[in-house]
Amino acid sequence: MKEWSVGVDVGGTYIKFACVDASGRLLEFHKIKTPVDSERAVMMDHIVDGIRHCAKIMKREVQDVGIGVPGCVDFDKGFIHTLVNIPGWDDVPLADILKEKLGCRVFVDNDVNVMALGELHFGAAKKGRNVIALTLGTGVGGALIIDTRLYRGSSTTAGEIGHMVVEKDGFPCNCGSWGCLERYVGNKYLVEQVEEAKDDFPNSILFHDDTLVITPIEIEKAALKGDTLAMSIWEIAGTYLGIVIAGLVNFVNPDIIVIGGGVALAGDLILNPVRREIASRSMKRPREAVQVLPAELGENAGVIGAATLAMIS
Amino acid sequence: MKEWSVGVDVGGTYIKFACVDASGRLLEFHKIKTPVDSERAVMMDHIVDGIRHCAKIMKREVQDVGIGVPGCVDFDKGFIHTLVNIPGWDDVPLADILKEKLGCRVFVDNDVNVMALGELHFGAAKKGRNVIALTLGTGVGGALIIDTRLYRGSSTTAGEIGHMVVEKDGFPCNCGSWGCLERYVGNKYLVEQVEEAKDDFPNSILFHDDTLVITPIEIEKAALKGDTLAMSIWEIAGTYLGIVIAGLVNFVNPDIIVIGGGVALAGDLILNPVRREIASRSMKRPREAVQVLPAELGENAGVIGAATLAMIS
Repeated sequence: MKEWSVGVDVGGTYIKFACVDASGRLLEFHKIKTPVDSERAVMMDHIVDGIRHCAKIMKREVQDVGIGVPGCVDFDKGFIHTLVNIPGWDDVPLADILKEKLGCRVFVDNDVNVMALGELHFGAAKKGRNVIALTLGTGVGGALIIDTRLYRGSSTTAGEIGHMVVEKDGFPCNCGSWGCLERYVGNKYLVEQVEEAKDDFPNSILFHDDTLVITPIEIEKAALKGDTLAMSIWEIAGTYLGIVIAGLVNFVNPDIIVIGGGVALAGDLILNPVRREIASRSMKRPREAVQVLPAELGENAGVIGAATLAMIS
Repeated sequence: MKEWSVGVDVGGTYIKFACVDASGRLLEFHKIKTPVDSERAVMMDHIVDGIRHCAKIMKREVQDVGIGVPGCVDFDKGFIHTLVNIPGWDDVPLADILKEKLGCRVFVDNDVNVMALGELHFGAAKKGRNVIALTLGTGVGGALIIDTRLYRGSSTTAGEIGHMVVEKDGFPCNCGSWGCLERYVGNKYLVEQVEEAKDDFPNSILFHDDTLVITPIEIEKAALKGDTLAMSIWEIAGTYLGIVIAGLVNFVNPDIIVIGGGVALAGDLILNPVRREIASRSMKRPREAVQVLPAELGENAGVIGAATLAMIS
C-alpha cells in the first residue's frame, strides 16, 4: 500500500477532496459544490484544481488519485459509462483525461465500491474477508468483497442489490423491473409511504406542522419519539431489506454486512428488523458466521474509500 | 492440473467411481448401490474398495481422489458436517480417514460444488469466469464460481440459492424459513402442486392412469404433449426460479448460469421462463453479459467434477 494518496468523491451535491494516509487518516480535506449546471469541461477543471490543491498542501507531487463517482464505471479502463444525477457524463474516459492533465496514476470506480473499500480497510469491515456493503439513500447500492478484494463482476456491474426482487408482483421500478428492493427502501419511497398514510394516521407527528418537509431524517426523529406511523415505516423497510439480506447470507455466506448511506442513519430502527429476518430466515451456519454492522466512516467514506482504491491499486 | 485422478460421487441412491483424465474423459467408470441401511464403516469399506478398483484398472497407484457428497462439508479439512438422506454421517473427518487407508491425497466437497467444477472445466461453463451453477432436484442447490475459482464463503456454505426468499409470506420451508425458492421448485413440491390441482384439471393426462406415479419426468412428458396443467407447473416453477436468478444476475453479474439436475431435464420448459424473467427484470449491462445454459455433463457431472476437484487442488 502507498504512503498516501488523493481521494475524490464526486456526488450530486458536493465534490470532496482529501489526502489520506495509509492508516486511513485525513491529512487534508476540502469540498466544493458540484457544478451540475456547468459544462463537463468546467467540472473537469474543478476536479483538476482540487487535486492540485491537495498536492500543494502536501508539498509533494500527487502520484496516485482515486475517484468515486455515482454511476456505472469500467474500473479497468477508468471509463465512465454513465452518471446518475450529473448530466453530460456519458462515455467519458475520465482516468485517461486526468492522467494527461496531472501526470499521475488515476483510478475510477463507482461510489458504492469505493465506500466498501474504505469500510474494509479502515472502517466497520476491517475484520472481514467476504463482505457485502450497502448504501441506503436515494438508491440502494451494493458492493461485494470476496476474499478481501472488490469483486466487480463480468461487466463491472456486480453489487446491484437494490434491483433484486423482493415482491414478485410489486410496484414498478425505474429500472424496468418491478418489486425491486429499492422500490421499498429508497429515500423517496419512504417519504411517499408517509404521504400516502396521511388519512390513516392523521395524528402522526409528521403531519403536525404543514411546513415540515418530510425526509428520512424527519421520519427517524418521529420514530425515536414513538410515532406509530414513523416506526412502521422503518419496520416495513427493514423487513424488506432483511428479506433480501437473509437470502444473500445464505447464498454468499459473508462474514460482515456493512450498511451505510443516509437512510442507514436510522440505525437500529432499520438494522433490528434486518437482524431479525436473518435470525429467522437464514440457515444456521451462514447465520452464525455473519455480523451486520453500521458503516463507520460516515460522510468521509467516499473520499477515504477513493483514496484507498488508489493506495491498493 | 494432474494427469488423471479418481472421482467419487456419493449419492442417496448410488455411489459412482471414475478415473478421469485431464481432458475430462472417463477412463473407467463403475457404480454401486448406496448401502444406506448399513453402518458407516461398511459404506466406508465400499468407498475404499471402489477407489482401489480404479487403481487396479489404471495399473497405477492412486495419488489424488476427489469426493462429492450431498451435504455440508468443510473443504479445507475434508470434514463432513452432515449429509442429506444418508444417516450416520454427522461430523466425519472423511479425508483424514481415507488418506490413512489409501495413502493418497483426498479432497471432499459438496455435490453441487463439484458439479460446478466439472461444468467449469469440461462442460457448459468452460468459457465462464464468474459462474452460478444450480442443480434442480429434491433440493435446489447452488454454487458460485468467482474468477474461475470455486467460492465457498466464510463458513463453507456459500451457494445456498434454494433458500433465498421468493415469496415474502410464502409456504413454510424445511429450513425454518418460509417462501424459499426450493419450496416452489423442488421435486416433491412440483408433484404436490399437480396433486392439489386434480379437481381443477380433472382431464389432465397426469390423471388418466391411476397407477401412474407422478414425477417431474412424467410432468415433463405431459407438458411436451401440450397438457395444460403440466405446462403451467413448469411455467410457475420457471418463473420463480427466474425471479431469483434475475436478481442474482444484477447482484453477481455472472457470465454464465448453468442449470443441471433431474428437474432441469425439462429443458426449455423451465429454462424459457427463466430467460424471460432475466430479459424483463435484469438490468441492461449484466443482462447482456450473461448466458443461461443447460448443464452438459449429465449423470456423470458428479464423478467428473469430483475428479476435477482433485486434479486442480
